[in-house]
Amino acid sequence: MHVGFIGLGNMGHGMAVNLLRAGHAVSAYNRSPAKVDALVQQGATRAITIAEACRGGVVQTMLADDDAVEHVTFGPDGIVASLPPGGTHVSSSTISVALSRRLCAVHADAGQSFVAAPVFGRPDAAAAAKLFVIAAGAPAVLDVMAPLFDAIGQRTFVVSEQPHTANLVKLSGNFLLATVLESLGEAIALVGKAGVDPAAYVDILTSTLFNAPAYRTYGDLIARKSFEPAGFAATLGLKDVRLALQAAEELTVPLPLGSLLRDRFLTLLANGGGQLDWSAIATVAQHDAGLGG
Amino acid sequence: MHVGFIGLGNMGHGMAVNLLRAGHAVSAYNRSPAKVDALVQQGATRAITIAEACRGGVVQTMLADDDAVEHVTFGPDGIVASLPPGGTHVSSSTISVALSRRLCAVHADAGQSFVAAPVFGRPDAAAAAKLFVIAAGAPAVLDVMAPLFDAIGQRTFVVSEQPHTANLVKLSGNFLLATVLESLGEAIALVGKAGVDPAAYVDILTSTLFNAPAYRTYGDLIARKSFEPAGFAATLGLKDVRLALQAAEELTVPLPLGSLLRDRFLTLLANGGGQLDWSAIATVAQHDAGLGG
Amino acid sequence: MHVGFIGLGNMGHGMAVNLLRAGHAVSAYNRSPAKVDALVQQGATRAITIAEACRGGVVQTMLADDDAVEHVTFGPDGIVASLPPGGTHVSSSTISVALSRRLCAVHADAGQSFVAAPVFGRPDAAAAAKLFVIAAGAPAVLDVMAPLFDAIGQRTFVVSEQPHTANLVKLSGNFLLATVLESLGEAIALVGKAGVDPAAYVDILTSTLFNAPAYRTYGDLIARKSFEPAGFAATLGLKDVRLALQAAEELTVPLPLGSLLRDRFLTLLANGGGQLDWSAIATVAQHDAGLGG
Amino acid sequence: MHVGFIGLGNMGHGMAVNLLRAGHAVSAYNRSPAKVDALVQQGATRAITIAEACRGGVVQTMLADDDAVEHVTFGPDGIVASLPPGGTHVSSSTISVALSRRLCAVHADAGQSFVAAPVFGRPDAAAAAKLFVIAAGAPAVLDVMAPLFDAIGQRTFVVSEQPHTANLVKLSGNFLLATVLESLGEAIALVGKAGVDPAAYVDILTSTLFNAPAYRTYGDLIARKSFEPAGFAATLGLKDVRLALQAAEELTVPLPLGSLLRDRFLTLLANGGGQLDWSAIATVAQHDAGLGG
Repeated sequence: MHVGFIGLGNMGHGMAVNLLRAGHAVSAYNRSPAKVDALVQQGATRAITIAEACRGGVVQTMLADDDAVEHVTFGPDGIVASLPPGGTHVSSSTISVALSRRLCAVHADAGQSFVAAPVFGRPDAAAAAKLFVIAAGAPAVLDVMAPLFDAIGQRTFVVSEQPHTANLVKLSGNFLLATVLESLGEAIALVGKAGVDPAAYVDILTSTLFNAPAYRTYGDLIARKSFEPAGFAATLGLKDVRLALQAAEELTVPLPLGSLLRDRFLTLLANGGGQLDWSAIATVAQHDAGLGG
Repeated sequence: MHVGFIGLGNMGHGMAVNLLRAGHAVSAYNRSPAKVDALVQQGATRAITIAEACRGGVVQTMLADDDAVEHVTFGPDGIVASLPPGGTHVSSSTISVALSRRLCAVHADAGQSFVAAPVFGRPDAAAAAKLFVIAAGAPAVLDVMAPLFDAIGQRTFVVSEQPHTANLVKLSGNFLLATVLESLGEAIALVGKAGVDPAAYVDILTSTLFNAPAYRTYGDLIARKSFEPAGFAATLGLKDVRLALQAAEELTVPLPLGSLLRDRFLTLLANGGGQLDWSAIATVAQHDAGLGG
Repeated sequence: MHVGFIGLGNMGHGMAVNLLRAGHAVSAYNRSPAKVDALVQQGATRAITIAEACRGGVVQTMLADDDAVEHVTFGPDGIVASLPPGGTHVSSSTISVALSRRLCAVHADAGQSFVAAPVFGRPDAAAAAKLFVIAAGAPAVLDVMAPLFDAIGQRTFVVSEQPHTANLVKLSGNFLLATVLESLGEAIALVGKAGVDPAAYVDILTSTLFNAPAYRTYGDLIARKSFEPAGFAATLGLKDVRLALQAAEELTVPLPLGSLLRDRFLTLLANGGGQLDWSAIATVAQHDAGLGG
Repeated sequence: MHVGFIGLGNMGHGMAVNLLRAGHAVSAYNRSPAKVDALVQQGATRAITIAEACRGGVVQTMLADDDAVEHVTFGPDGIVASLPPGGTHVSSSTISVALSRRLCAVHADAGQSFVAAPVFGRPDAAAAAKLFVIAAGAPAVLDVMAPLFDAIGQRTFVVSEQPHTANLVKLSGNFLLATVLESLGEAIALVGKAGVDPAAYVDILTSTLFNAPAYRTYGDLIARKSFEPAGFAATLGLKDVRLALQAAEELTVPLPLGSLLRDRFLTLLANGGGQLDWSAIATVAQHDAGLGG
């Protein structure tokens, strides 16, 4: 398939490489063009403009946030203006439900298709084609795009026909991960103040009831107080919790855990921890327990 | 080893059977003696009194709560009065940290040893000798008791020399499980109100980031709204959260998630759900979202 | 003084009447012109356009929300385009801190002054010239505007030179009022379930420690479960709590009480109570206590 | 009336003096007898034992907590053993609902009456006979005791026939006061971080919507960060919130604000603030906002 790919950050680079490996023809665009070089060496075509990346009729975006997606999508040189009628925009970024709704409407008005396909997985999973793809959109379009999803991930879950529900599921996943951070922070503060070694405690948890990647990865970071460099910065954690709360408010759904997480991230940021890994919200529980945080 | 076993409920029965299978001589006592019959058929000796169960110098208790443990331990016919000097009380019940401290002190005053060995696992794991044993106490005593732990569990974790820390770790584990219930309840209310099928959603979670027993077991119950019969009643969930909060207060550790859980359980109980499975606290998030909970 | 007045709702009408009574020349504008009639009868001039209301160089706005203020301020026929250089916009609406900052910047760019002067008080206080005016802006401008504030209120508090701080103080006041609603709701659920009469209880509170208008007004409504017609609808309460939380997030200030209030309002709205008086969040505490909400 | 008075602390001394001034014959007892001297100089009789204080058939207690009340009430030399049949115990201490229930039952078993009459007011109000008395018990007994209440307070509120409801109302009052502390702490952190002077802000609040003693007293302390010496220590604040939460749990009433307050007090205590005035929980909001708490 001919596919344009926009956004060659830590995640996007690995995804685009795997599209190439699977035999797709990739036209790559990035705001800072230096990042395109490595991909060209692996067989991609360099797109100088967004319009060039849209020429094949399918374009996938993997960008940092709402602003970045709006920037490449709207305006006279953006995706909506550049995609041919009948073209498809596959959005894999973690964006707001509201923006996803808007993208869906704008593309429909332009006679184009919009599909949301956010992913679960970190950069190493992206590089290894081991992502999980959460897809939503018109079934016929999803069928056509399936080879792209197969190229980047180990499994695709189709959520519904409304693209924004895939974004909601993605945000809910990050919300659930953040609750794991907070719960581990509190539990480790509790047993730690009683003299139990945090690392031994995390080993117990992850050997028994909580034998899951989320608990192993973050339990280890929290037990070792290893928050730099950030795999995912606290400022981004706050952003995703905020997006989950906004989506929930639009649906009139209270999320008391989300509210608590928001307060914890704000406390961390207000005390200088915005650039730490988001698992550093565990230090708030530590501080509140008089453990020096 | 000769071991008395007191408390033949759903958990205790399986544990005692596995002690027998491992070749230990078990003297079994239960408040309602009918439950002893099945064990005698498998080779146990019937203890008519607590004192008889203590005769061998080692007695293990697996009872419902603090009251039950206090009842068999103190008083003129209790374990403290009945165990010979140098004897050992192995407590596997989920009890308060405060009671564990008290048991440790009282047994020490009587020239006896006290070891805490609460377990992670449900009745099926107890029957299959697949429990995880969280042990704490004097190292020399734990060494002697190791064969008992090996007989009932798949792995033993030694936490510290202070018995009450094992009880704290057990309570913290139930606290973490309860946070999983609440977080799933909120997330399912959120995506469910947007039209995502709860069962499909839980499948996504447990196939990706949350591939752990806790999420699979409870995600399934919550998605199917299957809260009866209770595997673990909401009233017991509230009790364990209360014990975790009390232990935390003694250590001057705030647990905001614990506070939220306590409020959720009280809401469930006040609205008639005390006998439902504790995962039914998810219905509170459902109700608050206007989904009829 | 010649002053244009835009926004003749329940609050604005009383304020404009009092400007007239104090001898000011008022040019009145309202989106639905019928509301101007009553004011013209009391001596005001009818402004057919926003531009006419701006002609005297001073214009005061008292509108429902950010959208309404943006609507009359921006655009080719708005206040910024219509006020002469050196003119002053006095904003008394309850608006976001972010919009207040923006209004300040835009008016400054246009060589105009912007003053924030939100008020504490209900329509009866507005009619009686008994409002409290919270003013912020350039001191010299505030001095010139003082006669307007004196005409509508019983006292003016100058907060700082930055207009948006007055809006923040106003939002914080509504936040504090909402905490009173929640605390009364919880306390009345508690003593009510023990059999204490809610009305008698509120009488005790307001005769002793809580002898303040907020407790008397809302304690009475909650005790009598009198939530219709709404003096201030729950949807508006949620809006103001949201604005307080947004302002707090911009300042990186966690507000756990604000988070709780947001969740309570969402619960009320999700269960059909959006049009009730905002004191109806007390019914959430009632429901959670099993009292039928 | 002949009345024994037990507990001559800051509150009890003033109350006993006012009983004397009103013409009652007071037999005074205190654990540390030195405090009785001052009262004897004002006309009281010295009671060497609790039994002597009970001789007249009516005894009023004003003690620090449950433990102190249990200490003087139970045991062979306590009030229950000492009061004649038909005697009355008037308990004005802030005690748990559970203890109040127990006192009621024990005195009834002994053929005695028990009345709860906790008070609102600080030591200065006790000295000035300006307390508010919250009374509950058998109406006939309350009628007989009315002159005692009139002597110590400015007004008596009869809550119900069940004594423990008066204790619940008292605890709910302290709960409401604590919510004021927290709400002021958050609001002052918010406006303070925006540059508004805390003292000026409190002046606005208490001049307008929150013109009540609770807001004036504590707003001033929080704005000035004046937490020493403690008028009411944070440890006692935590105790009263705990008693309110326990009473609420017995009634199956969730109190989310109570949960938040408990966490805030624990955070303050864990960080060394237990001996500060309870209004110092406002420093937690300050800290969380990055203001150095």
